[in-house]
Amino acid sequence: MTALFITLEGGDGSGKSTQAALLTEWLEQGGHTVVRSREPGGTDVGVEIRQIVLHHRGEVSPRAEALLYAADRAQHVATKIRPALARGEIVIQDRYLDSSVAYQGAGRVLGAAEVRALSLWAAEDLLPDLTILLDLDETVARGRLDADNKVFDRLEAEKGEFHARVRAAFLALAADEPGRFLVLDAGASVGSIAESIRARVASLL
Amino acid sequence: MTALFITLEGGDGSGKSTQAALLTEWLEQGGHTVVRSREPGGTDVGVEIRQIVLHHRGEVSPRAEALLYAADRAQHVATKIRPALARGEIVIQDRYLDSSVAYQGAGRVLGAAEVRALSLWAAEDLLPDLTILLDLDETVARGRLDADNKVFDRLEAEKGEFHARVRAAFLALAADEPGRFLVLDAGASVGSIAESIRARVASLL
Repeated sequence: MTALFITLEGGDGSGKSTQAALLTEWLEQGGHTVVRSREPGGTDVGVEIRQIVLHHRGEVSPRAEALLYAADRAQHVATKIRPALARGEIVIQDRYLDSSVAYQGAGRVLGAAEVRALSLWAAEDLLPDLTILLDLDETVARGRLDADNKVFDRLEAEKGEFHARVRAAFLALAADEPGRFLVLDAGASVGSIAESIRARVASLL
Repeated sequence: MTALFITLEGGDGSGKSTQAALLTEWLEQGGHTVVRSREPGGTDVGVEIRQIVLHHRGEVSPRAEALLYAADRAQHVATKIRPALARGEIVIQDRYLDSSVAYQGAGRVLGAAEVRALSLWAAEDLLPDLTILLDLDETVARGRLDADNKVFDRLEAEKGEFHARVRAAFLALAADEPGRFLVLDAGASVGSIAESIRARVASLL
């Protein structure tokens, strides 16, 4: 049994869930035990934390929010991920510390380095064996949309800038740790992406 | 208007609430605006966090718990303490970062230095102008009890050891920052303790 911790990262709509499902199916057919998980909200405590972050009326300060997400991660890693890895299972997870760094860092209130340090403390330094980044070029996607709509409103333009910063942050993280990351073009076909992922995972088994 | 951030620390039953009330009354009579607060649970978000920490069924991991308390502190400092200080008010608070360090450190799972660093990040480095430590010698209190009961059971003995570690941690923190701390014998009379506190606060106004 080879324990592996595999995370999928990328913007919403980049195909993380689809690829996680295909990879899980392939691994289970190969006789592996797979644990699928996600953050935030992967544990009971996490669900309660998620309620606070997403549904609290009124302001949640940026640091309080970062600490709540980190608490969710600490609970998730301690009670779910590490025990599964200790049993020799494969954990496939939608979003992990790279999402915290990319999104919270892109929000420009907190620095990427401090968000990363906080996450690593929460996770007792647990890093994935493999992180699959499904990179979506939103400028291309938006360019097509723009040709139809001509004018972006301000909110859409701001959203576009935010997503561009998130994407750049993910790519910078991948460049810092080329051994951990597999960067794939999310615009390719589902089948070809799945094949690239299987090839890389096979090399780790 | 002199903004001041004053915290009271010490074990349960050391008289923090009584002294906070007396100090508040004295300051208000002197024309100052006083904000009384406490941690954990000093904000709406904090109350929800406190629910998770205290009432969750099942295990909350030590790091998740520390991060939840830190989130409570971050929200409290950002939305309540700093705005009050910015208005030139005096904040008098039951328990703050020294409690986190003393209690979580004494629990021996997390190190005092990392708990302190986490708290300071949460609070954006806000330290009190004055911390009043009401130091209670539980060995003396327990010694009297012991003379009557003769035998401690194991749980009581463990509790005693834990409280002795917490007390030692508070005293060590006070020794590290003698300028910030006022250490008073919680076994003295209420009136004489209140007088010592007033004398020190008067010197800061």
